[in-house]
Amino acid sequence: MSISPFDHPFLSGLFGDPELVGLLSAQADVEAMVAFEIALAAAQAECGVIAQADAEVIAGLETRYRADFEGLKSGLGRDGVVAPEMVRQMRSALGGQTAGSLHFGATSQDVIDTSLVMRLKSITAILAARIGSVETSLERLSDRFGGRKLMARTRMQDALEITVADRITDWSAPLARHRQRLKEIEGRLLVVQYGGAVGILEKLGEDGPRVTRALAERLGLGITEKPWHNQRDSIVEFSGWLGLVSGSLGKMGQDIALMAQNAMGDVVLAGGGGSSAMPHKSNPVSAEVLVTLARYVAGSGGTMAQSLVHEQERSGAAWTLEWLVLPQMILATGSSLLIATRLLESVETIGQD
Amino acid sequence: MSISPFDHPFLSGLFGDPELVGLLSAQADVEAMVAFEIALAAAQAECGVIAQADAEVIAGLETRYRADFEGLKSGLGRDGVVAPEMVRQMRSALGGQTAGSLHFGATSQDVIDTSLVMRLKSITAILAARIGSVETSLERLSDRFGGRKLMARTRMQDALEITVADRITDWSAPLARHRQRLKEIEGRLLVVQYGGAVGILEKLGEDGPRVTRALAERLGLGITEKPWHNQRDSIVEFSGWLGLVSGSLGKMGQDIALMAQNAMGDVVLAGGGGSSAMPHKSNPVSAEVLVTLARYVAGSGGTMAQSLVHEQERSGAAWTLEWLVLPQMILATGSSLLIATRLLESVETIGQD
Amino acid sequence: MSISPFDHPFLSGLFGDPELVGLLSAQADVEAMVAFEIALAAAQAECGVIAQADAEVIAGLETRYRADFEGLKSGLGRDGVVAPEMVRQMRSALGGQTAGSLHFGATSQDVIDTSLVMRLKSITAILAARIGSVETSLERLSDRFGGRKLMARTRMQDALEITVADRITDWSAPLARHRQRLKEIEGRLLVVQYGGAVGILEKLGEDGPRVTRALAERLGLGITEKPWHNQRDSIVEFSGWLGLVSGSLGKMGQDIALMAQNAMGDVVLAGGGGSSAMPHKSNPVSAEVLVTLARYVAGSGGTMAQSLVHEQERSGAAWTLEWLVLPQMILATGSSLLIATRLLESVETIGQD
Amino acid sequence: MSISPFDHPFLSGLFGDPELVGLLSAQADVEAMVAFEIALAAAQAECGVIAQADAEVIAGLETRYRADFEGLKSGLGRDGVVAPEMVRQMRSALGGQTAGSLHFGATSQDVIDTSLVMRLKSITAILAARIGSVETSLERLSDRFGGRKLMARTRMQDALEITVADRITDWSAPLARHRQRLKEIEGRLLVVQYGGAVGILEKLGEDGPRVTRALAERLGLGITEKPWHNQRDSIVEFSGWLGLVSGSLGKMGQDIALMAQNAMGDVVLAGGGGSSAMPHKSNPVSAEVLVTLARYVAGSGGTMAQSLVHEQERSGAAWTLEWLVLPQMILATGSSLLIATRLLESVETIGQD
Repeated sequence: MSISPFDHPFLSGLFGDPELVGLLSAQADVEAMVAFEIALAAAQAECGVIAQADAEVIAGLETRYRADFEGLKSGLGRDGVVAPEMVRQMRSALGGQTAGSLHFGATSQDVIDTSLVMRLKSITAILAARIGSVETSLERLSDRFGGRKLMARTRMQDALEITVADRITDWSAPLARHRQRLKEIEGRLLVVQYGGAVGILEKLGEDGPRVTRALAERLGLGITEKPWHNQRDSIVEFSGWLGLVSGSLGKMGQDIALMAQNAMGDVVLAGGGGSSAMPHKSNPVSAEVLVTLARYVAGSGGTMAQSLVHEQERSGAAWTLEWLVLPQMILATGSSLLIATRLLESVETIGQD
Repeated sequence: MSISPFDHPFLSGLFGDPELVGLLSAQADVEAMVAFEIALAAAQAECGVIAQADAEVIAGLETRYRADFEGLKSGLGRDGVVAPEMVRQMRSALGGQTAGSLHFGATSQDVIDTSLVMRLKSITAILAARIGSVETSLERLSDRFGGRKLMARTRMQDALEITVADRITDWSAPLARHRQRLKEIEGRLLVVQYGGAVGILEKLGEDGPRVTRALAERLGLGITEKPWHNQRDSIVEFSGWLGLVSGSLGKMGQDIALMAQNAMGDVVLAGGGGSSAMPHKSNPVSAEVLVTLARYVAGSGGTMAQSLVHEQERSGAAWTLEWLVLPQMILATGSSLLIATRLLESVETIGQD
Repeated sequence: MSISPFDHPFLSGLFGDPELVGLLSAQADVEAMVAFEIALAAAQAECGVIAQADAEVIAGLETRYRADFEGLKSGLGRDGVVAPEMVRQMRSALGGQTAGSLHFGATSQDVIDTSLVMRLKSITAILAARIGSVETSLERLSDRFGGRKLMARTRMQDALEITVADRITDWSAPLARHRQRLKEIEGRLLVVQYGGAVGILEKLGEDGPRVTRALAERLGLGITEKPWHNQRDSIVEFSGWLGLVSGSLGKMGQDIALMAQNAMGDVVLAGGGGSSAMPHKSNPVSAEVLVTLARYVAGSGGTMAQSLVHEQERSGAAWTLEWLVLPQMILATGSSLLIATRLLESVETIGQD
Repeated sequence: MSISPFDHPFLSGLFGDPELVGLLSAQADVEAMVAFEIALAAAQAECGVIAQADAEVIAGLETRYRADFEGLKSGLGRDGVVAPEMVRQMRSALGGQTAGSLHFGATSQDVIDTSLVMRLKSITAILAARIGSVETSLERLSDRFGGRKLMARTRMQDALEITVADRITDWSAPLARHRQRLKEIEGRLLVVQYGGAVGILEKLGEDGPRVTRALAERLGLGITEKPWHNQRDSIVEFSGWLGLVSGSLGKMGQDIALMAQNAMGDVVLAGGGGSSAMPHKSNPVSAEVLVTLARYVAGSGGTMAQSLVHEQERSGAAWTLEWLVLPQMILATGSSLLIATRLLESVETIGQD
């Protein structure tokens, strides 16, 4: 029974996001780490750094290696990172001389950071698609109700009449910018990390850059001039983007919760939440929860950014902080996009005739 | 497979805290909610509000009711709170006329908030005991090594010589204050919530205060003059305390990580973490992770405090925010106490002869 | 022209708090630092550590010493703390042999931290009194309008009718707890800091504890067993308390802003703010700004708590962080108390007949 | 005497940034607001919305209007925004019929937000130039010392030898990305806000878009399809960028503070800070303060992002929150860039022969 709200036995009824939970699960992490090691071996064989035969045996890990999670857990408790024990398990699965060709020239952070980035590639695609879905729902709403009237309110007071389309534009315009931002960020974010013990690929000598390029190509990732293991700006930049997305949805949620007030009647939602004491009520649960998630991701961004102070060539303290914060920010944002679409689809009418 | 670091397949090797995870699990929540309903019925029977026979049937829920978690999940997705569906399930388990005596005069927030407080009573006891353990470890260290010399450092520069005992006092003195603070907080925190739909127990009339007192007594909790459902200061106060505890441990962790630098040699730790690239290393993983957890809980406190703006008689937005933040803060603090003890027990020598 | 909103040429019209700005000003800081040095000399003379004659000359600094702020500024730019240059200026004002008796056995942090605490003693008294004023305003409102009706709202939806007194109780009950909390905190917060270079008063030998007690008595402060210079828990605890106070007021502000919506008419406020485009409007500016300040102090608390990771015997990084955050949190909270009283005094009617 | 650290009588010795303080001062704000009104009148005359003669009279405000700050302060206390009173003062300076042509079709937020953006245009240029200066200092260091050896450290432990150039690259590579990011952000950030009371320029009818374009051109700003007054994503995005910049500098500061430890001797800094108790010390004050500022801006970003939940057509609560946070984030980042350059210029030697 998970204690995270995002895959919790019952809280997941609201916050659940099985698709992103899957990508952020231990299993997906392990699979991506295996894929990294296989791609690395292939790239190194291609560059003549290890034997082609070794790379082929290593490729078999995809089917042959089954993680011993209890072992990984003890290993992580000891080493602070999962990689040393996982590499040991994989080497044991390989046996013999091939073992030395696995994880060659790499360090824990290479495999862990690149596993994250590989999954971020899928995650950003999913998030972009979900933004698109919210935009589509908004367009549909605007098509149906855009011409209706709505009292604009400033500082919580009635101001002047606008149209429903005006307000919907305020919800959708930021979403288009978020998609644009994501494109800009992806070039910096979806890059391989491969630097060895201290970021200089000391075991590869002149082959370093060539292997890195070959590895990146196999993984469908970009490269940076120097490994970025202790330069966390692109990871934090992405976390800030998550805050922008969930924040814009939080504004929409707050608006809709205010519109749904009984005395306003600016929106009618199907299937509002009930109460154990007042069965007559129809609560704008989804709208409220968008506000919750916005505040959660906003605040979490302030914690995440502390990890930029990543001292020396690897900071256990700063790096581990990312693990506590970033997955939750991704899930909260992913969840807010799903909830936003559900909320918009539940709108029965909006504005006044 | 949980995606939370605190019960994650492998991250829990570092952060795991099965005892507190258990108390914060969905199962423990359900059990506490059942216990609340049973105690409420008993209290109401005692006060003549419902029939004694009904209370006895309701008492049977403890063994008879098995939560249908899938149902709870859908219910929560619809209502934003688990209680309406759970009450429905319990009423269905009761059948017949008794059903009307269950959850009488109560609302979702009563059962959910009180379930939290019931478990906080256990949690605060565990945390206090763990603080005591850290203090014991520190005393033991001071007994063994307190007289040894240590270079005091201010602004990262050598200053003057102190003793190991001097520095240990800087680690332990705040812990004694944290225990004192917790005692002060408990009187405000460990109080029943029972207010009905809008906090005035409108269905109980004059019986309200008497039932509340009887309920609180049965649950071993205190009472407030008026239900506190939309007054979240004591919950947030407790979250701030978590930040103080983990923050003090973070200072200790940072100190030890600095002392463990090779050029310092101010501390020798047994069983430091290894590296996949540099097997010779002995990393002060536990010390670093104390810093991580301190920064995490510190920042999370800033998000948690946003939930004080809990509008009107119940804010879905603000209340739900607590669910996303508080359990993680508790687990991170509980975990940091466990790690602190492990770290201190691993000290082989500290200071200079 | 100050760029801080709390003493800004025009933003101070809203946020201004001359009383607390005064106590947190550079001038007040300098005065408290001078008073610390004078009290220290007097205490040391009393304990036979320095000559009584020297203490008397030093007492004259109160009138004789005029800070050269330009000099202090350069000094701070060089040393990161104001004390070395200020002590130099004071010594130069003293001249001759007395100079050696000034600041004897003390370090920068002693005079800076104690100056803060001395002013916190005044500040906490002011804040407590202001909380009392808000409570008085609430009582008065309750006396006038407490019996009137109000629609309770949960999750932004009409729930059941309550009385105005019910809601006012939800605003005032936390304030009484805040006063109680402050009393508990004061014992830990209002304590002298005097530890010398590294916290062990190495220059005073056996006289240390006696001088500390005498100094504390002269300043009307308490003591800790060991100097607390690198134990920042009581400072951070106080900052958390500020978050509780402003957060409770933020809840009240949010409630009043919602009540003032035109379609609700649950409250009528005198003198609402106007608009440059819509002169007919009456905006609940004070109510909104209470929400602003609550969110500001809440979030700032998360930053402030990062300063608990105060490494070794003095952390320039962590200590300086407090200077950036704490004064603003104090001013925002002080300001929110002033605004709350103004807002409540502006209520013309609340609730329905 | 300002209580902000950025223009404080003595704290400004460390944090002072007169250039940016100037741009964020009340005076600069007023001047930009006047410039906005003049440009608006000129654009409206150009589009035939007001008389050319009126625009010419209004252009005279630049020299004729002197803000009555006391009046602005009272106005802001009443209205929550400075614009209504400032427009009144300007109209009074104009006298006669021209008054009606001033601020035509505009609302407070138009003039205040655009004033901010106008100054952000200067501010971003300054910040970009300062990043360039830090990069130049780094290049120079690398030229001088890049080939020297340095022990790489991972998880605070000695790892393998690298060169000074390797570490300098880790400091400079993020800066190049920050410049690139700023370019991307500027297109979204440096846009005029002109929407009237509720964002639809209801007084301008079909002339709205044309006037907006003309206005933007005169101010050297871009435009958005619909006014962005309640879409705060680009402002918050910029605040996140500030966190990235100061965070990268914080990493460098932390590295240098660690390198400057006596037992390391990896760097020698000229003019380290002194202590009032230990005159022999040379504290790496600038390095530490970079860490301070990084943590401050990081945490502030979490507060700033709360302002994305900007309800309806104008949220007093959310908008005002920006005023409390953004200027301080800008000043802290600007200050950290100045300090970084000073710190790098003070490096006498780095690495080992």
